[in-house]
Amino acid sequence: MKKLLEGLLAFQTGYFDLNRELFEELSQGQSPRILFITCSDSRIDPNLITQAQVGELFVIRNAGNIIPPYGATNGGEGASIEYAIQALNIEQVIVCGHSHCGAMKGLLKLQALADEMPLVYNWLKQAEATRKLVKDNYSDLQGEELIEITVAENILNQLDNLQTYPIIRSRLHKGSISIHGWIYRIETGEVLSYDPVLHDFVPPQSRISTIEPEYNLHPSCSVPGLST
Amino acid sequence: MKKLLEGLLAFQTGYFDLNRELFEELSQGQSPRILFITCSDSRIDPNLITQAQVGELFVIRNAGNIIPPYGATNGGEGASIEYAIQALNIEQVIVCGHSHCGAMKGLLKLQALADEMPLVYNWLKQAEATRKLVKDNYSDLQGEELIEITVAENILNQLDNLQTYPIIRSRLHKGSISIHGWIYRIETGEVLSYDPVLHDFVPPQSRISTIEPEYNLHPSCSVPGLST
Amino acid sequence: MKKLLEGLLAFQTGYFDLNRELFEELSQGQSPRILFITCSDSRIDPNLITQAQVGELFVIRNAGNIIPPYGATNGGEGASIEYAIQALNIEQVIVCGHSHCGAMKGLLKLQALADEMPLVYNWLKQAEATRKLVKDNYSDLQGEELIEITVAENILNQLDNLQTYPIIRSRLHKGSISIHGWIYRIETGEVLSYDPVLHDFVPPQSRISTIEPEYNLHPSCSVPGLST
Amino acid sequence: MKKLLEGLLAFQTGYFDLNRELFEELSQGQSPRILFITCSDSRIDPNLITQAQVGELFVIRNAGNIIPPYGATNGGEGASIEYAIQALNIEQVIVCGHSHCGAMKGLLKLQALADEMPLVYNWLKQAEATRKLVKDNYSDLQGEELIEITVAENILNQLDNLQTYPIIRSRLHKGSISIHGWIYRIETGEVLSYDPVLHDFVPPQSRISTIEPEYNLHPSCSVPGLST
Amino acid sequence: MKKLLEGLLAFQTGYFDLNRELFEELSQGQSPRILFITCSDSRIDPNLITQAQVGELFVIRNAGNIIPPYGATNGGEGASIEYAIQALNIEQVIVCGHSHCGAMKGLLKLQALADEMPLVYNWLKQAEATRKLVKDNYSDLQGEELIEITVAENILNQLDNLQTYPIIRSRLHKGSISIHGWIYRIETGEVLSYDPVLHDFVPPQSRISTIEPEYNLHPSCSVPGLST
Amino acid sequence: MKKLLEGLLAFQTGYFDLNRELFEELSQGQSPRILFITCSDSRIDPNLITQAQVGELFVIRNAGNIIPPYGATNGGEGASIEYAIQALNIEQVIVCGHSHCGAMKGLLKLQALADEMPLVYNWLKQAEATRKLVKDNYSDLQGEELIEITVAENILNQLDNLQTYPIIRSRLHKGSISIHGWIYRIETGEVLSYDPVLHDFVPPQSRISTIEPEYNLHPSCSVPGLST
Ligand SMILES: [Zn+2]
Ligand SMILES: [Zn+2]
Ligand SMILES: [Zn+2]
Ligand SMILES: [Zn+2]
Ligand SMILES: [Zn+2]
Ligand SMILES: [Zn+2]
Repeated sequence: MKKLLEGLLAFQTGYFDLNRELFEELSQGQSPRILFITCSDSRIDPNLITQAQVGELFVIRNAGNIIPPYGATNGGEGASIEYAIQALNIEQVIVCGHSHCGAMKGLLKLQALADEMPLVYNWLKQAEATRKLVKDNYSDLQGEELIEITVAENILNQLDNLQTYPIIRSRLHKGSISIHGWIYRIETGEVLSYDPVLHDFVPPQSRISTIEPEYNLHPSCSVPGLST
Repeated sequence: MKKLLEGLLAFQTGYFDLNRELFEELSQGQSPRILFITCSDSRIDPNLITQAQVGELFVIRNAGNIIPPYGATNGGEGASIEYAIQALNIEQVIVCGHSHCGAMKGLLKLQALADEMPLVYNWLKQAEATRKLVKDNYSDLQGEELIEITVAENILNQLDNLQTYPIIRSRLHKGSISIHGWIYRIETGEVLSYDPVLHDFVPPQSRISTIEPEYNLHPSCSVPGLST
Repeated sequence: MKKLLEGLLAFQTGYFDLNRELFEELSQGQSPRILFITCSDSRIDPNLITQAQVGELFVIRNAGNIIPPYGATNGGEGASIEYAIQALNIEQVIVCGHSHCGAMKGLLKLQALADEMPLVYNWLKQAEATRKLVKDNYSDLQGEELIEITVAENILNQLDNLQTYPIIRSRLHKGSISIHGWIYRIETGEVLSYDPVLHDFVPPQSRISTIEPEYNLHPSCSVPGLST
Repeated sequence: MKKLLEGLLAFQTGYFDLNRELFEELSQGQSPRILFITCSDSRIDPNLITQAQVGELFVIRNAGNIIPPYGATNGGEGASIEYAIQALNIEQVIVCGHSHCGAMKGLLKLQALADEMPLVYNWLKQAEATRKLVKDNYSDLQGEELIEITVAENILNQLDNLQTYPIIRSRLHKGSISIHGWIYRIETGEVLSYDPVLHDFVPPQSRISTIEPEYNLHPSCSVPGLST
Repeated sequence: MKKLLEGLLAFQTGYFDLNRELFEELSQGQSPRILFITCSDSRIDPNLITQAQVGELFVIRNAGNIIPPYGATNGGEGASIEYAIQALNIEQVIVCGHSHCGAMKGLLKLQALADEMPLVYNWLKQAEATRKLVKDNYSDLQGEELIEITVAENILNQLDNLQTYPIIRSRLHKGSISIHGWIYRIETGEVLSYDPVLHDFVPPQSRISTIEPEYNLHPSCSVPGLST
Repeated sequence: MKKLLEGLLAFQTGYFDLNRELFEELSQGQSPRILFITCSDSRIDPNLITQAQVGELFVIRNAGNIIPPYGATNGGEGASIEYAIQALNIEQVIVCGHSHCGAMKGLLKLQALADEMPLVYNWLKQAEATRKLVKDNYSDLQGEELIEITVAENILNQLDNLQTYPIIRSRLHKGSISIHGWIYRIETGEVLSYDPVLHDFVPPQSRISTIEPEYNLHPSCSVPGLST
């Protein structure tokens, strides 16, 4: 704790002092460009890995970067998403999972958590779609491989869950929002991004030229009876 | 988005490369010392303001840094708390609110949000105890002053809500955990910490010498019939 | 009621008698090929419009053919879906909305229902994603056109909601299930089917040759780190 | 699927064409006389077994024809009931269970479903009153007999649950609604109807002369203090 | 408070001292004969009005003596009922409403409570079946008369809600429990009991000879197919 | 039952007759001074042990005198508390547990209740904070000692839970309410009261002179930035 308090002082006399104008401006209001959803894991520092400045990332963090389907939970996730998009007009959403995720390891041995960590157990049940998909489709995998695929599938699951939120569904239809799935690898420092065309996680640099939005399931549908 | 992807590259070829050993080690497991609960607001960067290294802060972020009482919600907050304390044995919890908080402004005009942002509305109802306390006890305040007191009271509310969680209640009784309330002021870069003796938020540096844990409501109670 | 009781008799001495063997066989167990989800509306008779025989359609019916996202409700919808797919191994799912749907009309003037029909009001809130999408994106439409587009968008919404169910997500990944969106038009007797490639509802006969499954969002994803 | 699409065509060029006027009329609005609540089981075709015309039955279908008590669930059941009675003024309600019901078989070995079909498990818990009654009072029965009594008791349970709904309770008091319990026997094509006087399920033809409503628990009660 | 503490002393040196043996015995365990459900209202003292001794009444009290249908709430009501009947084998249940009930007055002007007393508002919504029945069927009544009929109808509502509880349903079927509805009139000290045959609340003394159980809706039903 | 009905008569011709004026007055309205929360246990008679008159105690009773945190349940507890304090302006709250409490015994062997008494099981989970604290901190205790400490810790738990209610939090801040924890000992007739200074349950007579409110965690906090 002492070290932390010294850090506060160091920040104030260092970084803050050097960027006094930025903070002055920020105190007038925020206008972040990215909604960044990631795990509570201490090894992830969103601003560090993206080199984003203070004020650029609106951040939601929980164990496992899980966003339950709309209506399934009444925690802070849905409200924070709605606030980010409706009130702040953010147009880029990133769900960032990571290698060696403790929550995903827990998901793979879920029953063992029921007694000792009942809240974790109930929360991970929100990722039952991930658990079942992995159990039914990757029964041949084990160890690290199994964890990696679970991390990846869990991100894809959250991408679909996000679409069930009214504000996101409406903006996707309008084409004014895009959603991205990232895996951050602690051991290499690299980030892979989900490519819906390749159905694979690939280095995002290879996709910079891609026309956005990358993840737009339902471009405005016309109903035949209307056009005729 | 392009800027962000360039940031990823810059991180990898810069900070990561310089700290390769740290990340190697972290890929073996995390052992954070602090559970840091704060707002999703883009103007807060927990690692920056505390100058904490990657791996030191287990972070929960939602709109308004609200932790509903145990059992009131089934979102990620409770599970992330339980995981932090039960699985990672974290002994320091910080609830960090901040000046100019949009969620707190929303709380002060709650009814106006019902239609446009129903999820935000429902979420802020979890802070009804803050809203009512402020409405009933600070009817003379307005504008910035009202927001500031709301931010402060909301943090105290969350400190009490935290105590309703079984794992926290048990560890508080054991004396193996301490809980802190912080206000981060964007415009000055300073952090104030709640002092339960003074019943006030004060610069934490003035409290470094204080014997921890600072916030321990019920030292083990003995029942009279037992001792005699 | 009297007419209904006479109908029972007519059925027994008519259709049943003529198909005694079929019913004998069915009493041994069901093996339907289709999960048919449609509105409670009396103008829809699933077996009639598909000319399906008794035993072919496993049917879920509620006001508005709404399937809330996984976890959002604890009514019979989710269980019936799970039973159909997990226990009966059904591989075809149809969500069939219809023209002139009273539930969709209700959705367009939701607030008016709050007092008089609170349960309907709460239920239609499960289709908030439809309501918001239509409100935000089709503000130029009115009357019949508005209702038609609401019916159509609602079906697409349910198709996405279905994907949040663990059993469906797992089977979609395996490629052993396909999901279809239908609009039944009471006044013409025709059925239109959603075509994800055209992003439009079209006569299904034109799609008979299409390679199934038509609606398979995530063919098995491979994770790069694994293949190399 | 191909067969189904051919069926759609057959319907349009056959039955629809012959009844074009009826459908024209129905497209103006529905006015069903019966709320028919039955199991999703593919072996039940409500319009077939009652020989009811399109437009006569407003239908709710889920696994086990279960209507949880008012407030216990937020699925489509309650809303569909409210809509049927409040908006459509339906005055006859039928809960129709059936022989060989898979949901009732599941109820008798509930614990076995917990892992494999968690949604079915949770849903059947809504019929715990049936399960417990059967377990406590029919411990001597087995096999088909046990299933039959479970089917019967489950229907009676739902009849009572229906009474907890505000709209039904109010209409029962007014004497403007009647509720019926039916068992459909797949193997014989017969329907038995619950007779509250005999406390038994009997052929409904024997009851045609009965004065309706048959199921009206509380004719308007007068309170003594008021009359004197 | 001082008066209360003096009361504690008076009890100990008075009543307790005179009945020391009774309390000695009670400290070994309770075996109450009655489950008494009544309003929290300070003007009701269950033991006083029934002259029951300590140990005879197992008591549930909340605002409005409301017992929501099984599954509708997760408060203490259901558990206390289950404990009383399953663990203590109580065979008599009394729901005792009372004249001038503040909760029932609140129910008649429910909307007015939404802002000032949100928890009361939500709780009284559990008595929506009472509210709607009274609104729809007694629109001609006003003032005291309206309150009286609301009190009476609310008790009948709770009697039916009680039947949705598995333990009660099972015991009713077995004939080993009876349920009674009482109205306690503060101004006269009299109690009226609901008579299901007369459909009226009458002085209970007139019913002492009645064969119990008075309230047993479904004596064991036999299923025709079984007997033949 | 017969005895009870005789009791009603005895009350009317005895106590009521002697106190006719009191009841006359009470029929005009209640103004209790105490909110008394206690167990449903038949061995507790709140008016008897406090020698309080009819009209003095507003009473909430459930199995285990448990008050879940604000928002965690939707039973009658929260509403009754809100009504007592907001509508009746009660300023003294007592949570009164008792020796030999069956609910607390159940809490200590919770898992055993899951099958036989599921509602009790779920309800006692609301006291998980008590259960975990006792399990983690008093593993050396057994038998009566363990039950006694559980009873005591459970009361303290409820005192903290009460603070999460908006109305209580607001009144505590204002200093216009005080909350007390009591243990009633059936075998001795004595009551012990929690003393937050001593962190112990002591005879309340020793505390009569104490300045109230005894339990006021957060006297109005001032925020530094405001005062300077
Ligand atoms: Zn993680
Ligand atoms: Zn904020
Ligand atoms: Zn419809
Ligand atoms: Zn069935
Ligand atoms: Zn009352
Ligand atoms: Zn007790």
